[in-house]
Amino acid sequence: MGGNRLGKIFQVTTFGSSHGRAIGAVVDGCPAGLPLDAQDIQIELNKRRPGTSEITTPRKEEDKVEILSGIFQGKTDGTPIAAIVYNKDVDSSAYEAIKYKPRPGHGDYGWISRYGHYDYRGGGRGSGRVTIGHVIGGAIAKKLLENFNIRIIGHVTQIGHIKAKRVDFNRIEEYTLENPVRCADKKAAEEMEKLILDTKKRGDSIGGIVEVITLGAPAGLGEPVFSKLDADIAHALMGIGAVKGVEIGLGFKVAEHKASEINDEYCIKEGRIRTLTNNSGGIIGGISNGMPIVARIAVKPTPSISLPQRTVDLKSMKETTIRIKGRHDPCICPRIVPVAEATVAIIIADHMIRAGFIHPCNIEIES
Amino acid sequence: MGGNRLGKIFQVTTFGSSHGRAIGAVVDGCPAGLPLDAQDIQIELNKRRPGTSEITTPRKEEDKVEILSGIFQGKTDGTPIAAIVYNKDVDSSAYEAIKYKPRPGHGDYGWISRYGHYDYRGGGRGSGRVTIGHVIGGAIAKKLLENFNIRIIGHVTQIGHIKAKRVDFNRIEEYTLENPVRCADKKAAEEMEKLILDTKKRGDSIGGIVEVITLGAPAGLGEPVFSKLDADIAHALMGIGAVKGVEIGLGFKVAEHKASEINDEYCIKEGRIRTLTNNSGGIIGGISNGMPIVARIAVKPTPSISLPQRTVDLKSMKETTIRIKGRHDPCICPRIVPVAEATVAIIIADHMIRAGFIHPCNIEIES
Amino acid sequence: MGGNRLGKIFQVTTFGSSHGRAIGAVVDGCPAGLPLDAQDIQIELNKRRPGTSEITTPRKEEDKVEILSGIFQGKTDGTPIAAIVYNKDVDSSAYEAIKYKPRPGHGDYGWISRYGHYDYRGGGRGSGRVTIGHVIGGAIAKKLLENFNIRIIGHVTQIGHIKAKRVDFNRIEEYTLENPVRCADKKAAEEMEKLILDTKKRGDSIGGIVEVITLGAPAGLGEPVFSKLDADIAHALMGIGAVKGVEIGLGFKVAEHKASEINDEYCIKEGRIRTLTNNSGGIIGGISNGMPIVARIAVKPTPSISLPQRTVDLKSMKETTIRIKGRHDPCICPRIVPVAEATVAIIIADHMIRAGFIHPCNIEIES
Amino acid sequence: MGGNRLGKIFQVTTFGSSHGRAIGAVVDGCPAGLPLDAQDIQIELNKRRPGTSEITTPRKEEDKVEILSGIFQGKTDGTPIAAIVYNKDVDSSAYEAIKYKPRPGHGDYGWISRYGHYDYRGGGRGSGRVTIGHVIGGAIAKKLLENFNIRIIGHVTQIGHIKAKRVDFNRIEEYTLENPVRCADKKAAEEMEKLILDTKKRGDSIGGIVEVITLGAPAGLGEPVFSKLDADIAHALMGIGAVKGVEIGLGFKVAEHKASEINDEYCIKEGRIRTLTNNSGGIIGGISNGMPIVARIAVKPTPSISLPQRTVDLKSMKETTIRIKGRHDPCICPRIVPVAEATVAIIIADHMIRAGFIHPCNIEIES
Repeated sequence: MGGNRLGKIFQVTTFGSSHGRAIGAVVDGCPAGLPLDAQDIQIELNKRRPGTSEITTPRKEEDKVEILSGIFQGKTDGTPIAAIVYNKDVDSSAYEAIKYKPRPGHGDYGWISRYGHYDYRGGGRGSGRVTIGHVIGGAIAKKLLENFNIRIIGHVTQIGHIKAKRVDFNRIEEYTLENPVRCADKKAAEEMEKLILDTKKRGDSIGGIVEVITLGAPAGLGEPVFSKLDADIAHALMGIGAVKGVEIGLGFKVAEHKASEINDEYCIKEGRIRTLTNNSGGIIGGISNGMPIVARIAVKPTPSISLPQRTVDLKSMKETTIRIKGRHDPCICPRIVPVAEATVAIIIADHMIRAGFIHPCNIEIES
Repeated sequence: MGGNRLGKIFQVTTFGSSHGRAIGAVVDGCPAGLPLDAQDIQIELNKRRPGTSEITTPRKEEDKVEILSGIFQGKTDGTPIAAIVYNKDVDSSAYEAIKYKPRPGHGDYGWISRYGHYDYRGGGRGSGRVTIGHVIGGAIAKKLLENFNIRIIGHVTQIGHIKAKRVDFNRIEEYTLENPVRCADKKAAEEMEKLILDTKKRGDSIGGIVEVITLGAPAGLGEPVFSKLDADIAHALMGIGAVKGVEIGLGFKVAEHKASEINDEYCIKEGRIRTLTNNSGGIIGGISNGMPIVARIAVKPTPSISLPQRTVDLKSMKETTIRIKGRHDPCICPRIVPVAEATVAIIIADHMIRAGFIHPCNIEIES
Repeated sequence: MGGNRLGKIFQVTTFGSSHGRAIGAVVDGCPAGLPLDAQDIQIELNKRRPGTSEITTPRKEEDKVEILSGIFQGKTDGTPIAAIVYNKDVDSSAYEAIKYKPRPGHGDYGWISRYGHYDYRGGGRGSGRVTIGHVIGGAIAKKLLENFNIRIIGHVTQIGHIKAKRVDFNRIEEYTLENPVRCADKKAAEEMEKLILDTKKRGDSIGGIVEVITLGAPAGLGEPVFSKLDADIAHALMGIGAVKGVEIGLGFKVAEHKASEINDEYCIKEGRIRTLTNNSGGIIGGISNGMPIVARIAVKPTPSISLPQRTVDLKSMKETTIRIKGRHDPCICPRIVPVAEATVAIIIADHMIRAGFIHPCNIEIES
Repeated sequence: MGGNRLGKIFQVTTFGSSHGRAIGAVVDGCPAGLPLDAQDIQIELNKRRPGTSEITTPRKEEDKVEILSGIFQGKTDGTPIAAIVYNKDVDSSAYEAIKYKPRPGHGDYGWISRYGHYDYRGGGRGSGRVTIGHVIGGAIAKKLLENFNIRIIGHVTQIGHIKAKRVDFNRIEEYTLENPVRCADKKAAEEMEKLILDTKKRGDSIGGIVEVITLGAPAGLGEPVFSKLDADIAHALMGIGAVKGVEIGLGFKVAEHKASEINDEYCIKEGRIRTLTNNSGGIIGGISNGMPIVARIAVKPTPSISLPQRTVDLKSMKETTIRIKGRHDPCICPRIVPVAEATVAIIIADHMIRAGFIHPCNIEIES
């Protein structure tokens, strides 16, 4: 059974695996009238492309996108937008040796349990490489949201024990592009880079936290009871491979607080209703309140490490040991930034249409 | 637009609001052949019923459930199961005074922004009372899962700064029923109760953490890429009103770890494949691996407090102050336990059918 | 597995069976701001109520509707509207004798094959009585559409070999209410009534054709490729129990024509684009063109007849004979009229929101 | 808003337009373990390919399919199967002249009304060419069904006034491949071919009827109330561009009959429950009964004709006349045969999984 689709009206269906022929996405439900070309998607794909620095996997992929449908005379025409990226630098040699030995921390065992027949090369469709589909969908969503002055900004806030200092929301985008770690706090970014390289040398990997902020979203996004905006964001973000937790606003810190300390009180600023604080991260009771929407994800260390690990040989049903070769990221956080942005963008775009802020058929029609 | 449905095959649609005539749920997609009567649902509803101790709201509701359809000769017959609870102890007097003044921390402002016409009495459909629908659906899901030896167990692990010690999974259920806080660590439970009562006296409320454990689920549950088991659990749990964060297994702690420290290595126990540790909380790459599934939620303090708070009068568009009367829980965690259990049960039941472990039409058919 | 829901945004979930406790519907996705009370639904239910004339089943049901949720101060508030009708005049005695003998023309055998455990009393959820759910949903859809000057009108056009003459669209509603057959051609109506009574006397039943016309729908309704307006209408209408065919506009007659004979040419009337003919029945290429939408359904004779019929005893697996007692309609067409209207109304309402003509959250917001 | 997906578990999402870069489909929800290669799809595509005889459009397209994902070592692996066909022989010159003049009988006006920005070249995504997506999805569905001994057979039963005689179900497939009209009655096929060629000479086109038979489907397919098997088949078939009516079994003829004449009585044949007649076309009350499933569609004449027709210039809003050039089929029925087969195959495959007859994850697992 499926599960390869995100969004209810703005729907992104993705396909493809790490070592297959191509990876792609079909975006159905994008209104007509949106100016869009391959370059809009390419820019976002370049942000997640591997091999761009010392701290990412050495796999070399150009990740050049090709749009197959849905654009007419430079604009979306309301029909599905299909876009693909061919896999080029495929090296499956390392995987034959371990095809019956599930790698600790990887989804191999679950996939085998579920499907029986499993593409074990590079993790198959369980690979991080499938997030190309997220990014294609997200690039289109971002372009759509830009037309409504909504911006989605991701950045790394923690790697291992190193935590970034909070930076003004409007500067994050600029700052994160300046370093390979995608952290807006320069000093922390340097330390993080060192930590990642150090971890890499030891054949290990390290986790971290990524934050995604949405600026400009109106109050009123989110459907009660089971399709709350934060629920849909949590769903989408938890769908990214390495994510083990999602929180909104203060997140897990709310457990330690009293309501009198963290309730966001209302005020009027420049004629608009705002809150004095934003502990709720822009979403209360599942509906946006017009403040910045703040979501954070816990990203586990890439499970592929070259150190020896215990596992089981599924053929002989005996315990054994593996060492994982292949090419991997010592810390996936920097490359998850554009993926998390894309993912949130899809959800916000979807809810903008669902709530009637964007016309479902053509963005030029007043909604 | 809707959003009042949970699950893809085992689908729970809920309706009703805090001060309306009734609250209920329709469960569509439950296979035929499951023995079920009103008492099965009533037992679960009683766990979340208000007015049962000093630390819950004094609102008195019997919450007696009535099944309207879907049961024939004591068993489900594959048709939708509708069940309702009539609201009895409705007191809307406190809400007239604040109908144009959104309460800090509550969804009022979002609901008004979205729907214009809003039932402000007791939070309307944004009230915690709507979780009666979750519990109805969850009770049926639990009954279904019991037939497949799957148990869902919730407990409070933290209130304010007080953290419970870890208890053997098999004892949690028994222990939590012994105290009103629903904490399995007796000593912590006593401290938590004191803290809640103390907070209540001050007209304030306090947050906490609830954990839900699923025992007995097979490996192979969860659909890649966008309907991963953890993603669907996160989605469902984040859909509970006061929840601001969801994590699986180690959760946010993964950020601080190296893969070599937390990868769950495989071994063989009693002829079955298991992992030596369970840092991943039973789900890797979005698919269950046969280990206990462990999810935790961050529950914010009930925003309704009697202390004065700043807000805005939406009619005059001037800043003002409110004091919230009405009847409220000083800590919602204990009553969220059965709701969180129900929510997880719905997702697991749904995925059991989606993965082919439970026959979609009749549980007596071998699957 | 489910299947008890109609519509994508305006969603109607129904429940209940012929001899169970209650029958009802939950409408999720109706925008806020629509004035609605029980009487709006009751009027439509009364049109399909049994026992109102010689040509319907003698089962006496008041079919009094009770709204449980979704209305606040006389208007919808955007939350799910649940409404129920309790079954009163239940007489299951006739069914015990035939519980292992599937009735020819009835769904019994399919239900047993599918679900194993089957409520055989009065056809269970396969009974025509479940269309109460359709009518509840349709009554709300009709009320919504009225606000946008869209009217849905059904009438009987054929019973047996007797065909009604075409009547001006604007007079159909008035004329059909004048006779129990719901046929707008008075002369044909009289003949039809005679034919039905004659058929009834012989212990038999007769089929017919019902047409549903939608006036006032704008051009632009319908989603390509797999959710065309006519496809969704066909789906919904074929979902009514006794329907064996659906056609739009000229329908099956197109097979005998050349394009030059039946293409609807465009013209301008009162400043608006219209077609000179309406052979396409208001839908071309799956999208409405602003002309009246015309759908017709083939309704089979009620399979319950008192004449002896061959069947099989499922317990002994031997061939046998049955005579069906119980209370039945000699011709279901007149009572299908309000059901078919309701069904089409749900689809049109759903597509009006999906196409952006009705705001998804509140009808008072300009769309 | 979307609408480019068919099926609930076995889901086919299609994309692409007549004169765009490519046309394709993504099949999500096909179980793992099914042997599949490009040739399986190519065989079906060849059946609908244009330019193969005098009676089809002269557009020359190789329609060579390329599989991008979802196959590993010659078998499906449970991940989405994406397949595309590049458009080659694109000639858009004829369309510039008529871009503001909606063609009678074509969807142009609806598309413009709905999306504003519309790809008018060759009908864009409203073109019959998009049924390549249906056929890709259907080819995979057919392959899946073959494993369960289910066969889908389509044939032309009427062109204009010429009706084919009924032929033994098991011979239809063989006979239809012998003539370009795809009619199993050889004599009628010859007359039909003459009629089509004659119509073509006059610059006109002609309609007809296509029947699709499903052999080997078990009893128990179809979900009450709103996802009945016949409702889903009607929905899918009505989604094919030129279809104006769908009927099951006797179809519209039921209107003229009494129940005593057409009720299918049960009997036992070779130890299995069967019906003596099959007037219901294998589906009663929305659920299959194990007999052959028989569906028929009314196909309108291709609206593109070279004769002059009245229309409106949307720019000047004045009435005008057009003559349609381009390349078109004088009768679309023969080429609709494989499309209708594909469409029914998708629905049957979907329902086989939904009803638990095919395991959702791997076909080799006993279901």
